[in-house]
Amino acid sequence: MKLHCEGIELSDGVMKAVKACATKTTSPILECIRLSAHNDTLTLLATDGEIAICKALRAEVLEEGAVCVPGKYFSDFIKKLENEQITLATEGDTLRITYGEAESALQTLNADDFPQIDFEIREQNVQLLSKDLKELIAQTTFCCAQDDSRPILKGCLLCTEGDFVRFTALDGYRMAVCRRPICGKEGDLRIVCPGRTLNEIGRMLGADEDVVCIYVQKNMLLVRIDDTILTSRLYEGEFVNVAGIIPHEFASVAVVDKNALDESVERASILARTDKNSVITFDVREGSMGISSNTSIGRVDETVRIALTGKDVLIALNCKYISDCLSAIGDAQVRISFNGSIAPCVITPTEGDSYLYLVLPVRTTA
Amino acid sequence: MKLHCEGIELSDGVMKAVKACATKTTSPILECIRLSAHNDTLTLLATDGEIAICKALRAEVLEEGAVCVPGKYFSDFIKKLENEQITLATEGDTLRITYGEAESALQTLNADDFPQIDFEIREQNVQLLSKDLKELIAQTTFCCAQDDSRPILKGCLLCTEGDFVRFTALDGYRMAVCRRPICGKEGDLRIVCPGRTLNEIGRMLGADEDVVCIYVQKNMLLVRIDDTILTSRLYEGEFVNVAGIIPHEFASVAVVDKNALDESVERASILARTDKNSVITFDVREGSMGISSNTSIGRVDETVRIALTGKDVLIALNCKYISDCLSAIGDAQVRISFNGSIAPCVITPTEGDSYLYLVLPVRTTA
Repeated sequence: MKLHCEGIELSDGVMKAVKACATKTTSPILECIRLSAHNDTLTLLATDGEIAICKALRAEVLEEGAVCVPGKYFSDFIKKLENEQITLATEGDTLRITYGEAESALQTLNADDFPQIDFEIREQNVQLLSKDLKELIAQTTFCCAQDDSRPILKGCLLCTEGDFVRFTALDGYRMAVCRRPICGKEGDLRIVCPGRTLNEIGRMLGADEDVVCIYVQKNMLLVRIDDTILTSRLYEGEFVNVAGIIPHEFASVAVVDKNALDESVERASILARTDKNSVITFDVREGSMGISSNTSIGRVDETVRIALTGKDVLIALNCKYISDCLSAIGDAQVRISFNGSIAPCVITPTEGDSYLYLVLPVRTTA
Repeated sequence: MKLHCEGIELSDGVMKAVKACATKTTSPILECIRLSAHNDTLTLLATDGEIAICKALRAEVLEEGAVCVPGKYFSDFIKKLENEQITLATEGDTLRITYGEAESALQTLNADDFPQIDFEIREQNVQLLSKDLKELIAQTTFCCAQDDSRPILKGCLLCTEGDFVRFTALDGYRMAVCRRPICGKEGDLRIVCPGRTLNEIGRMLGADEDVVCIYVQKNMLLVRIDDTILTSRLYEGEFVNVAGIIPHEFASVAVVDKNALDESVERASILARTDKNSVITFDVREGSMGISSNTSIGRVDETVRIALTGKDVLIALNCKYISDCLSAIGDAQVRISFNGSIAPCVITPTEGDSYLYLVLPVRTTA
């Protein structure tokens, strides 16, 4: 393999591909980026066994071929060559990198040892606006489970429903359900996609009005954005049936200014976080909601104005769970609904059903 | 104690004072900020036993008095009240914080238990431009020792010499000596100031052309910048006598473009850092300097143009030490001088003597 390319383009491509490299693995090939030169294109490919990212860029190919280089060092190095014209050439078991008057080299692994990645994924698809996908991801994946106790909960359930797509994530303490319109689809989708995959897709997304197509076939997903292709395994198995979890009637419904509530919760969290239960107490009454935390270091006692329909309620919530939800919401007002102090609290828009958050209360001894 | 003040001013003051709070200590009072209200001023004071920072701000004092609050929680909390008008009032063993419709409180400690800080430090002093002090600090303190094996090396030696002040820092592997003109002095200064103190002073410094006065008395130092006063203990004992360490004659003197060298060193460091010796080899010849690192992952081989006077030399240096020095230098060109491959390498300006760095070579088996 031998080729010339622009440092700025190679650097951009390598930064994208390296995101899929494994970091802690016993398999060195998964820490590599596979370079392959063909016609007038250099293709970069990396995978950690779950996600794969492939990025094509222009190159003057003098000799076709393929090779694997350590992803982290190659990307750190190429990042420092943005202003150079670069020549890459294999030489024995090294990749020679020539730029200006310098000639450096990295040890390589055999390109044939790199895992085969299937890019023929096309059976079903759903198309939606980049803006909508970005919001769906930002408003749900933070609720995915972080630990491995129930692996499927590290994923997010994606379902098409008529002209909409719904994303559902939950970790046993809180749940997010978000809906957005789609631009089109082929077949009906019901997949569980790793939260990490969605976050990587979120970082790749371009201009708001672009239409993004998510392809699915068996247990694989594929997204193409400009010259970058991401594929990912999907989780297999049954996701939690959330239909029965969401209450449809509430004893108390409060409408509140989102920013005022968020700021109060942030201040109460400073103290609440110092306590092992991280609890904030919400005292919901007609006209006002008291937000308080009380620890050995001190107490916060604030009040925000609300419009309440229904009964007064006193409920204790984990400060992080409520604060994560409020931070993800862009609306000026939100509706918070309760069924007493031991039932989940539900946060929704005042109009429409673009998102729904459900947070389990903390049982306190008080 | 009871007073009204502006959130933005209190927040600014608390952010400054909290820098002196101890973080890991068995003495809770050192984690506190002491608040005291007198006339129309609120004074914030914090100390970790080495550094103390005192900041005065305007307040409407309704009741004079003093109290100590946990520094970290108080500062985190007040940061979130920048847009509020705040009332602080002691009540039993708590400090009530009232803002808008809210009323929070923090547990307090007795102000009498807070260490006495001496602000009567005035025996000697040296005055210099803020800009010069900023540069002296940025160009030397990174060479202070980080570990406790020789505590005095965690400090920086400050000496007045006629109309100049000299800062010297060394850690056993490298040394920095920087000189700048002073605006005036009272008495001749020779003190060892903790590197951390200087870095805090560096962060406090204002406009370049302000004149800063450093006061010294016995083993204490005091600096006042606007309404903020910092005092610090000085290290006692003899600093290393560096006069004998600096060579005055060199077998080889190279003049080199600083940025070109810095960029080459950065690239070579990416590989050098992966090796336990972190070595970069410099091959200095008439017209060119080879910069190379060679590890199991790969090799970097670059060349920068130089003007050499004297003999060729091949020397191995720790990549971090050489890179730290180059990053601290603002000049377009530097002079690098050698006395063979086992004597220290010395970096100086091409004109003047505003800085001097000395880096010990690494002995390699090659």
